[in-house]
Amino acid sequence: AAPTDSNSTKVQELYAYEINERDRGSPAYLRLSQKSVNSLGDLVPFSNKVYTGDLKKRAGITAGICILIKNEPEKKGDRYEAIYSFYFGDYGHIAVQGAYLTYEDTYLAVTGGSGVFEGVSGQVKLQQIIFPFKLFYTFYLKGIPDLPAELIVQPVPPAIEVEPTPAAKNCEPGATLPNFTN
Amino acid sequence: AAPTDSNSTKVQELYAYEINERDRGSPAYLRLSQKSVNSLGDLVPFSNKVYTGDLKKRAGITAGICILIKNEPEKKGDRYEAIYSFYFGDYGHIAVQGAYLTYEDTYLAVTGGSGVFEGVSGQVKLQQIIFPFKLFYTFYLKGIPDLPAELIVQPVPPAIEVEPTPAAKNCEPGATLPNFTN
Amino acid sequence: AAPTDSNSTKVQELYAYEINERDRGSPAYLRLSQKSVNSLGDLVPFSNKVYTGDLKKRAGITAGICILIKNEPEKKGDRYEAIYSFYFGDYGHIAVQGAYLTYEDTYLAVTGGSGVFEGVSGQVKLQQIIFPFKLFYTFYLKGIPDLPAELIVQPVPPAIEVEPTPAAKNCEPGATLPNFTN
Repeated sequence: AAPTDSNSTKVQELYAYEINERDRGSPAYLRLSQKSVNSLGDLVPFSNKVYTGDLKKRAGITAGICILIKNEPEKKGDRYEAIYSFYFGDYGHIAVQGAYLTYEDTYLAVTGGSGVFEGVSGQVKLQQIIFPFKLFYTFYLKGIPDLPAELIVQPVPPAIEVEPTPAAKNCEPGATLPNFTN
Repeated sequence: AAPTDSNSTKVQELYAYEINERDRGSPAYLRLSQKSVNSLGDLVPFSNKVYTGDLKKRAGITAGICILIKNEPEKKGDRYEAIYSFYFGDYGHIAVQGAYLTYEDTYLAVTGGSGVFEGVSGQVKLQQIIFPFKLFYTFYLKGIPDLPAELIVQPVPPAIEVEPTPAAKNCEPGATLPNFTN
Repeated sequence: AAPTDSNSTKVQELYAYEINERDRGSPAYLRLSQKSVNSLGDLVPFSNKVYTGDLKKRAGITAGICILIKNEPEKKGDRYEAIYSFYFGDYGHIAVQGAYLTYEDTYLAVTGGSGVFEGVSGQVKLQQIIFPFKLFYTFYLKGIPDLPAELIVQPVPPAIEVEPTPAAKNCEPGATLPNFTN
């Protein structure tokens, strides 16, 4: 094997699903604009579940906030500025920031991380499968050592009907990352 | 030409104007402190227009939030913690975080980016021209390939009277970045 | 001495104390969830004082926001997503993002910085000493030149009774970083 080079410019891909199973009281849509249409001033803290890209393991959660920037009636959707983190249990977390458009895929910035993601940079592609309940992410990560084998999985291609395995949903032994975040 | 080195420590300067043309309902001052003076607890989501440093092209928008940290009567102003992004159409975006002082220039951290700014680090100088409507930014960017020629422009020196060209204001063909963010 | 290498993968440790002396109106607990128990929807802007790790100098302040993610009754505490900066006067600032758990130490991502911290990456260990009034941080910083000697101090080991020196508390000459943030 090639030596691990923590300063490498090599890009490593990491896949994850974010799923809202409607059991975390999320999102909290704070209509602080006090307008009837989604408007600047509205804030949306959220936290959903994260599964590995093969949907075989519960990884952890997302946690953060979406800032409503603009309602776009002609696109039947909204533009948000999203600032949040992905938690992967004992492996650590990845922080991201960028646009979340309810009608279109986007790329967000990877702004940093902890644990195996310490010092990470790069970007992440956000693909919406079912708004706002099922999303697929492809991280393009730089500046970190080779990811642990457990995180390098063959992803299930994003599709409306895909679901985590029942074992992963139930967080059964062997179907979670170590000390998965909840 | 020298080869592009995406891992370079070379610093590239990028200039941009942020202008509030008062047509985006921004800022949304949320007086959540419920105090009569600006106080910790107040939040200010915002989104303004971004022009290239030569003021000849509409680039996109800013999007994010200012967190009121402290009212400073002796300085006749406020300290905010600002967390936002600059969008440059198809070129991608830059995320930043740091102090916004209404009475003084500051340097914010560049925390990441997407597109041509993928993996970026560095800092950005914020110069206030007309509070809070016209600001000039000088980005000092590292860790990315050479910026596209279209972004490397001779800036108009910041001054109260400077304005985008009419073509840029009107987002006319040739007077915007490709697929400028709006 | 070894030459300064701004692109180094060398890790530099920086220590800091964050202390809430209850004179800044912080934190501002915004119970936007409108629930009696801390819940998703609650936001907590905050700003505390920062001292050097040896508690001999006032460095500046923290400034940012905690987003309540989850109340965890079985752990008698809360999970927050924290997004904030540490200000060190003329030396600049460090931006961070990650989990703040009221019942456990965590590692947050260092997402960027300004001044001597321009281009920084890495992570920071948050150790809670007295919730939520006294915290100790160990930064693990990469990608920056050697830190100024004034910032490289022998830390006072974190303990309940530790306090800044009276001179530092009073921000006396010689007991602050240059132009300390306030």
